[in-house]
Amino acid sequence: MLLTIIYIVAITAEAMTGALSAGRRSMDWFGVILIACVTALGGGSVRDVLLGHYPLGWVKHPEYLVLTCCAALFTMLIAKWMKHLRSIFLLLDALGLIGFTIIGCQIAIHLGHGFVVSAVAGMMTGVSGGIIRDILCNDIPLVFRRELYASISFVAVICYWLCMSMGMSLEWTVVTTLVFGFSLRVIAIYFGLEMPKFIYQDDDDQSASSKDH
Amino acid sequence: MLLTIIYIVAITAEAMTGALSAGRRSMDWFGVILIACVTALGGGSVRDVLLGHYPLGWVKHPEYLVLTCCAALFTMLIAKWMKHLRSIFLLLDALGLIGFTIIGCQIAIHLGHGFVVSAVAGMMTGVSGGIIRDILCNDIPLVFRRELYASISFVAVICYWLCMSMGMSLEWTVVTTLVFGFSLRVIAIYFGLEMPKFIYQDDDDQSASSKDH
Amino acid sequence: MLLTIIYIVAITAEAMTGALSAGRRSMDWFGVILIACVTALGGGSVRDVLLGHYPLGWVKHPEYLVLTCCAALFTMLIAKWMKHLRSIFLLLDALGLIGFTIIGCQIAIHLGHGFVVSAVAGMMTGVSGGIIRDILCNDIPLVFRRELYASISFVAVICYWLCMSMGMSLEWTVVTTLVFGFSLRVIAIYFGLEMPKFIYQDDDDQSASSKDH
Repeated sequence: MLLTIIYIVAITAEAMTGALSAGRRSMDWFGVILIACVTALGGGSVRDVLLGHYPLGWVKHPEYLVLTCCAALFTMLIAKWMKHLRSIFLLLDALGLIGFTIIGCQIAIHLGHGFVVSAVAGMMTGVSGGIIRDILCNDIPLVFRRELYASISFVAVICYWLCMSMGMSLEWTVVTTLVFGFSLRVIAIYFGLEMPKFIYQDDDDQSASSKDH
Repeated sequence: MLLTIIYIVAITAEAMTGALSAGRRSMDWFGVILIACVTALGGGSVRDVLLGHYPLGWVKHPEYLVLTCCAALFTMLIAKWMKHLRSIFLLLDALGLIGFTIIGCQIAIHLGHGFVVSAVAGMMTGVSGGIIRDILCNDIPLVFRRELYASISFVAVICYWLCMSMGMSLEWTVVTTLVFGFSLRVIAIYFGLEMPKFIYQDDDDQSASSKDH
Repeated sequence: MLLTIIYIVAITAEAMTGALSAGRRSMDWFGVILIACVTALGGGSVRDVLLGHYPLGWVKHPEYLVLTCCAALFTMLIAKWMKHLRSIFLLLDALGLIGFTIIGCQIAIHLGHGFVVSAVAGMMTGVSGGIIRDILCNDIPLVFRRELYASISFVAVICYWLCMSMGMSLEWTVVTTLVFGFSLRVIAIYFGLEMPKFIYQDDDDQSASSKDH
């Protein structure tokens, strides 16, 4: 099944981004493995806990947990060459983002939820692993500051939903969403597209100002 | 129903505090919306997940999620004038705190829990949205440092419990708790009342000291 | 039952570490109590939520919640003398770590899970209370930077699993794991043993390097 392959690619790529983040903070091996697991499997876990969808993915399939641990160890080994693999890495991460989004969306639909909850479930799956990673590393989550990321996840949900409403088969819907979302993400990275920011200051005596730039 | 109105006021007010926090950190629009949703709906979600009370509020009523998104967008629009609305805003936030506390407490009682768990459920609903907001913005949660806030939530729970034990009707209990808790919060803000702090230092060679001030 | 006594010692010790952490950040009394409760009961709550094991421990036995509150208040009282109690404290914390690990592991096994999930459940119970404490205090979790801690939890799980596989009785398994894990932790503290660290830098124009030291 296409989605299983994408899922495996996605958790591997996410585990590697987690391991590198942990390495930037000079964590020990255990920390690296934990951050990798949380980054890869945290998004799905948050979704499943909030939707009451038990058992969680990694509880049912502990092999995914083992896979992320191996990915973390592997990342420590090849960290020296990571710089040269950057573009491959970004592409895998983009594939992962869209893959996670589709999976999260599908699970919510299977549980009988409507568009709003499915959209949240899809975005949560795609994005919250990275948010937990950044919290554990004591950063402001990158998701809120970087080029289009979460918003692409949202657009992918809309694309998925539109395809389904138009009566497309599941396979075609998945493929269309993947290609569309992946292309968007690549374009966003290439041109450094960003969401407009909301800037607000009110330190009691400073003037409040709101700018979009 | 009175509580529904209070709930809607509360999530709107909380969503707006979340959006302003995100704006202080110069997040992009998506970040603003996410922080707003988490601040408004996070407390109830944490309570429901810990008590195993499924489905969560926003899964059952996705319209609340849409409402918080709109509140976040609206906040970005009116941010320029926010300074002048500050006192209204603080009052709405106080109303929200007590409203959330009552709702959390009621849900725990309906699930058959005793005083301790209901108190925790009430405080959790009132306070943890703001805690998650501050964690996502990489701050030490304000709740632990500001004027009386969580403690007023606790006092409101005791008031609610006493009224119920004395055989008051639900309507009167809710109204009494609201008025009492709201007044307390307004007094605390007005006089800048704070909980005593616990200060501890033991950086290995420094002397340990404990002061209440 | 031995495990209940260990559990009570463990949550008391963990609540005290939480209270001291909160004191280092000059939190108010409410913050101190909340951090103490989260540190003591958070690990078990995370495990139970992820495994869908309801009701949570403190919901079923609210007396544990009251105990951690009392421990927090007691810590504020005796904080002045805490420095002199440090070694006792570290030993109680070590006992707590292994005790939590065993309890988490047992619960997962009772729910019918295999080695991987039980190991994660054990480590999660032992370690995640401290992680949430550090996140709430806005630190990078100590677990990832200090002497062997989480890894000892992992070794304790393996020991527990081996004893069970060899057909030992539950009592002997628990005692063996406790003694073994506890000794390991004491050795690690005494000699300042640490896991090797993974250091990675790639600030776009800096060179990537991976060192174990």
